[in-house]
Amino acid sequence: MKFGGSSVADADRVRNVARIVTESYKKGNDVVVVVSAQGDTTDDLIAKYKEIDVNASERERDMLLAAGEQISISLLAMAIQSMGCPAVSLLGWQAGFRTTSSHTTARIKKVDPTRIRNEISKKNIVVVAGFQGVDKHDDVTTLGRGGSDTSAVAIAAAMHADLCQIYTDVEGVYTADPRKVPGARKLPEISYDEMLELASLGAQVLNNRSVELAKKYGIELEVLSSLTNKPGTIVKEHTKMEKLLISGVAKDDDIVRISVTNIPDEPGLAFKLFSILSAKNINVDIILQSIGRDKTKDISFTVNKDNGQAAVDLLTEKFLSRYEGVNISMNDNVAKVSIVGSGMESHAGVATDMFEALFDANINIHMISTSEIKISVLIRKEYADKAVRILHDKFFPEV
Amino acid sequence: MKFGGSSVADADRVRNVARIVTESYKKGNDVVVVVSAQGDTTDDLIAKYKEIDVNASERERDMLLAAGEQISISLLAMAIQSMGCPAVSLLGWQAGFRTTSSHTTARIKKVDPTRIRNEISKKNIVVVAGFQGVDKHDDVTTLGRGGSDTSAVAIAAAMHADLCQIYTDVEGVYTADPRKVPGARKLPEISYDEMLELASLGAQVLNNRSVELAKKYGIELEVLSSLTNKPGTIVKEHTKMEKLLISGVAKDDDIVRISVTNIPDEPGLAFKLFSILSAKNINVDIILQSIGRDKTKDISFTVNKDNGQAAVDLLTEKFLSRYEGVNISMNDNVAKVSIVGSGMESHAGVATDMFEALFDANINIHMISTSEIKISVLIRKEYADKAVRILHDKFFPEV
Repeated sequence: MKFGGSSVADADRVRNVARIVTESYKKGNDVVVVVSAQGDTTDDLIAKYKEIDVNASERERDMLLAAGEQISISLLAMAIQSMGCPAVSLLGWQAGFRTTSSHTTARIKKVDPTRIRNEISKKNIVVVAGFQGVDKHDDVTTLGRGGSDTSAVAIAAAMHADLCQIYTDVEGVYTADPRKVPGARKLPEISYDEMLELASLGAQVLNNRSVELAKKYGIELEVLSSLTNKPGTIVKEHTKMEKLLISGVAKDDDIVRISVTNIPDEPGLAFKLFSILSAKNINVDIILQSIGRDKTKDISFTVNKDNGQAAVDLLTEKFLSRYEGVNISMNDNVAKVSIVGSGMESHAGVATDMFEALFDANINIHMISTSEIKISVLIRKEYADKAVRILHDKFFPEV
Repeated sequence: MKFGGSSVADADRVRNVARIVTESYKKGNDVVVVVSAQGDTTDDLIAKYKEIDVNASERERDMLLAAGEQISISLLAMAIQSMGCPAVSLLGWQAGFRTTSSHTTARIKKVDPTRIRNEISKKNIVVVAGFQGVDKHDDVTTLGRGGSDTSAVAIAAAMHADLCQIYTDVEGVYTADPRKVPGARKLPEISYDEMLELASLGAQVLNNRSVELAKKYGIELEVLSSLTNKPGTIVKEHTKMEKLLISGVAKDDDIVRISVTNIPDEPGLAFKLFSILSAKNINVDIILQSIGRDKTKDISFTVNKDNGQAAVDLLTEKFLSRYEGVNISMNDNVAKVSIVGSGMESHAGVATDMFEALFDANINIHMISTSEIKISVLIRKEYADKAVRILHDKFFPEV
C-alpha cells in the first residue's frame, strides 16, 4: 500500500491511513506500506535550503529531503501501534533500496527485501520510506518525481506481492479529468500500456516509471482513494472487460513548442539537433518536420515547459551559431490533447472521428502524433479544456 | 567542532557556524563538525508525535527525532559549500556510530571512523549528525540528553583529534552562573574532575558523559561561544595554571529531598531501600542517615525532581508496606549549592569557610555532602541564588 504526501498531511490523515492499513492487516494480509513525506514538510525543507543556497549541491539536497519520509514513516508506525497492531518503520537504506548515484533523480538498481521479510515474519506491519535509497557509497539518494510510487512497485516486485495499492486523492483512473469533464467515468480496469500513455499525457494519476516497473514484473496495481472506501481502478496486463474503443482523454498544457526554421538541407542535421538535446536529458515529444523555402527544412517539436528555455539556449549555442540563416522560436500557448485506448489497434477511423470533432468545434490542429494506442494533437492552450470535453462526449456518449 | 541546536537555529546562525568552520579549515586544520538538530525542529517533531501518541514507542521516537540532525547537517554542509569549501554531511550510521539498543538513551559502543577518514583524505569538511547512531539490528538510536557533546568527543577519540571544541551560547566555564553572579569570571582552564563535579552540580555547560569520555581518552576540550570570537575554557587532565583553591560555585534546584523515617534498626535495610531505587535507574545524590526515636533510623536523600514521585511510589509499594511504622515524605523546597576545586585537596578549612559564610547570612544548612574536590550543602530553595553570590564573594573576592 502506498500513500502520498497529502494522504499523511497531518495527524488526522495519518490516523486515517493507519486505519486503512490495520483493516487490511486484520483481514490476514501481510502489509508493507510505503509513504511519502508529509506535504508541508517537503515545502518547509525546500524553503530551508533555498534560504541557505538555491543552488545547493544535489547530494546535500537529497540528504535534507530524505528527512521528510523519515518523519512520516515514524508517525505512521506510531499511529498503527496506537491502534494495537505491531509496526516498524524502515528508511530506504534499511529497506534494502540500492540506487544509482545520480542525486535527486536516482534510479533503483536493486531492492534487497531481507529486512522487510524478516519484519513480516515477525508479524510486523512494515512502514517504508518511499522516494529514497542509498548508492554504492552509502550516500542517501532520492528518486525524483513520483519516486514513492516507484518505491512501492519495486517492493511489490521484490516481495512478489499479490497486489500493489496506490492510494491517492482521486478514486481511480477516469476517462477524463473529472474536475473538468462532468461526464467522466471511473474505469474499473486499464492495461499497463494505456496507463502509460495516459500518465505521459498529463493524467498525473500514476508516475510512468512505476507503471513501467509494474508491467515489467507483472505487478497488479490498484489506484484508489485514501478518503473514500471504494474500489479503485486495477492496472494490469490484460483487462478482462470488453475492450473499450478508447479508455481516456487527457490534456497536457505543461509543454511548449519550439520551432527551428530554415535548416539547410544536409543529411543528419535533424539527428544532430536532437542529439544536442538528448545529451542534456531534454526529452522531446511531438516532432513535425516540413519543407521550408529554398530547399530548407523546418523542424518543430514540443518539450516540457521546464526545459523550454534550456532547449532554446542549447540550440542557440550549439546549432544556430553553426548554420547561417537558421531561426529558433518558442511558443508556450500550446496544449496537447490525446485519446488513448488499446481498442484503437483494431478499429479504423478513430483518428478521423477525433479530427472531425475538433474541426466541428473550430479548433485548429497544429501538430499530430500517433502511436498504436494513442492519438495526440497540439492545439492552442485556451481550447484545451473544451477539446477534452468535446472528445469525451464523442467517445463516451451519455448512456 | 561541535555546535548545539541554538547555534544552528536559523539560516543566519547556520551561516555563522559555516564561517567559524571554514576559518578553521582555511588555517590548515582537518575539520569534523558535529551538529545537533535546529532548536525548533526538535520541538516541532516532539509536538508531531504527541499529536499521534504521547506514549509512542521509543524505537519510533528515535526514528522521528533523528530526522532533526539530518536537516541541520545538510543545511550546514550547503552553507559551507556556498563559502567555497568542500563539505559532506554524514548521518550517525554513515559516520560509523554503533550503539546499544536502548532507544532514546543509547550508549555508544564503537565509532568506526573509516568513512570520516576517507572524506578527510579527500579534503572534505565532514559534518556529522550528533546524538544518533544505529544498533546491531541497524535500527536508528538516539543518545539522550547531551548526546551531541558525547558524539563529538567520541569522534575526537576515534580520530585521535588534537582538540575537541564544544561551541555553546556561553563563552566558557565560569566560577559561577554569570547571569546570577555579576562578579563571575571565565576560567581559562579546568580539570576533567572539576568539570565533572560542576556539570553534575547543575552548571549545565557540558554533559557529564562527554567529559567522562574525554577524560578516558585524554581528549582536550574547549568550551567556547559560537557568537563571540574569544578563547574559551580548556578542559584537560592537568591544568598548567596555579591551582585555584576552588574553581566554581554551582547551584542545582532541580532536586527534591525524600525522607524515610522510623525505619526499624535491622542490618541491611538502608541497602534494601537504595537497591529498590537503583533497580529502576533512580540515582540518589546526597544521603543523610540519622538515629531516630526508639532505636529507629531516619534516612534522607535527594533525587532529581523528575524522579521524585516515582521514588516515593516505589518505596511506598516495596518498602513502606513491609515495615510497620515507616513514614515517607517528599520536600521540593530545596536546592543544592556546591563549591568545587581541586585545590581543596591540599587546603584545610575550605568547608569551615563555606559554612561560616552561610551562617553569617542566616542560611540554614539541611544536609552536607563532600568529595575530595567538592562540598555541597542542601538549603531552602529561596536562599539558593543568595548563597551562590555569598560563596562566590567569599572565594573569588574582587581584586
